Amino acid sequence: MSGAPALSFADVEAAAARIAGQAVVTPLIESPALSERLGVRCLLKLETLQRVGAFKFRGAYNRLAQLSPDERKRGVVAFSSGNHAQGVALAARLLGMPALIVMPADAPAIKVAATGGYGAEIRPYDRLSESREAIAAQIAAERGAVLVPAFDDPMIVAGQGTVGLEMVRQAEAIGARLDLVAAPASGGGLLAGISLAVKALSPATELWAVEPAGFEDLRQSLEAGERVTIKPQGRSLCDALESPFPGEITFPILKRNLAGAAAVTDAEVAEAMRYAFATLKLVVEPGGAAALAALLAGKLKPRGAVGVVLSGANVDPDLYARVIRGEL
Amino acid sequence: MSGAPALSFADVEAAAARIAGQAVVTPLIESPALSERLGVRCLLKLETLQRVGAFKFRGAYNRLAQLSPDERKRGVVAFSSGNHAQGVALAARLLGMPALIVMPADAPAIKVAATGGYGAEIRPYDRLSESREAIAAQIAAERGAVLVPAFDDPMIVAGQGTVGLEMVRQAEAIGARLDLVAAPASGGGLLAGISLAVKALSPATELWAVEPAGFEDLRQSLEAGERVTIKPQGRSLCDALESPFPGEITFPILKRNLAGAAAVTDAEVAEAMRYAFATLKLVVEPGGAAALAALLAGKLKPRGAVGVVLSGANVDPDLYARVIRGEL
Repeated sequence: MSGAPALSFADVEAAAARIAGQAVVTPLIESPALSERLGVRCLLKLETLQRVGAFKFRGAYNRLAQLSPDERKRGVVAFSSGNHAQGVALAARLLGMPALIVMPADAPAIKVAATGGYGAEIRPYDRLSESREAIAAQIAAERGAVLVPAFDDPMIVAGQGTVGLEMVRQAEAIGARLDLVAAPASGGGLLAGISLAVKALSPATELWAVEPAGFEDLRQSLEAGERVTIKPQGRSLCDALESPFPGEITFPILKRNLAGAAAVTDAEVAEAMRYAFATLKLVVEPGGAAALAALLAGKLKPRGAVGVVLSGANVDPDLYARVIRGEL
Repeated sequence: MSGAPALSFADVEAAAARIAGQAVVTPLIESPALSERLGVRCLLKLETLQRVGAFKFRGAYNRLAQLSPDERKRGVVAFSSGNHAQGVALAARLLGMPALIVMPADAPAIKVAATGGYGAEIRPYDRLSESREAIAAQIAAERGAVLVPAFDDPMIVAGQGTVGLEMVRQAEAIGARLDLVAAPASGGGLLAGISLAVKALSPATELWAVEPAGFEDLRQSLEAGERVTIKPQGRSLCDALESPFPGEITFPILKRNLAGAAAVTDAEVAEAMRYAFATLKLVVEPGGAAALAALLAGKLKPRGAVGVVLSGANVDPDLYARVIRGEL
């Protein structure tokens, strides 16, 4: 953030006005069964029902809507394992500009197909031998296109923050005050944005991040007081949550606003996906179920009224079938 | 209805007051992707998110809440392939009375397990060799328990009608007037109830029933002008929609209020379940997806703003896995 003007709640409010009528105001629902199980009132924010099946559309649309006519003509470039890819692709289509997305060759097929379906050009890359940053930067330079980061951008963060703004207002509308809010974390864009809104509207609310076990760069960074880059050993079931470091823009906000970060194993995530299928009747992708998993597994201590973000639902049918059959 | 006082919108309003705070006010959501595909604004009523995973809780709770202290002591008996079973079981638990449910031995395991999980006693029966009506009547007589029909009961119909009441009001709240409402039909309790509310609040709205192909007793009855009982050849994927006749109480209401009845094949239902998984990110059981299937398959002509009830989501993981993998 060196030198950059600090992001504030006003940016989230401006984003909310910008995405109104384009993003879905997703429901905040209470599942009596879940509340009974956790022993507290639990409100679920269904970003699974957002356009493109994940919250990422909010930030992408907020960012792309602010491009100049000239920038729009040259279009945008992004790199993403899938949800940001779809968010940028759809926002670009709605705003009438070309988009190219650099995606890992092993990204979930449903995410690749959807991204192409929104009209974006896709450039696959090999996770092990190629640098997506370098590829995207080169293409952006060649085309004069704007590179749209997945989380480390003020307008992306402000856009994701509208999730928190809606949660607080929707909770109020049903007579609830959120004592704790939990959301999945990768680069931290969603939680940084949410925290701007929640801390402005409801300062006493405690905010928790949930990461996949083995990808605890945020927990380590919070403990160290500075950004830590981890070297992951292997992969996580949560394909959307594999960032090895929190963002340069997101971390100072998270450091200020988070109560802490919890971690969940693949088995706990799979169990949460099964719970969402069998009891909540909601499709949730692995990364999207991380915060729910932390609550169900007792990794977070619920108190008062709890808000949980189900952040995405883009999961390949084969993987989903294996999870609900208990094979994973 | 011979001699019985006619059901009216006032009964639905009374039911709404009775179930308030117990039933979930389920969201009415718009999926931009679905609206774009159908070329009309499409609003989905998510009874999949209702308690017990289906609208049936509404009617059951409305019925059981009106039992006398004496009746409550002796408890209730019902027969059902699954969703009414769960509705009665949970309503009985919440109201502190015993429940026994007569269920087919081949009912979906998830429905049997959930019914037992709500504390009901389960009496399995064989579809081919036993009469569930006779078994239930005998047990009710032995125990002095009240028999709770799945659809042919005024208070069950009034309870299900709260779905329609909420739909009209929720649509208004987002500036939409429903031109057409479609819902799955078996005995007709859901649609009869919905029609009482919708025709009272929005008389110009057209109402359509959707049945499984081969179980078109309602279409045949509407054409004949009187209740027709069919002899089904085989089973439907829609285990919740296999009633061979419309109800004695529901049919006169349906005859007065419906524009017609469409039919969908198993393949069309499976396709709608896949669409709900991949695009809407909602778990929907076969019968619950019938109205959506009719729209996606072009069996209903959408116009203006369309309201579609996704009526239930209790589906066994193995069947669901096969459907989303395209094996069904």
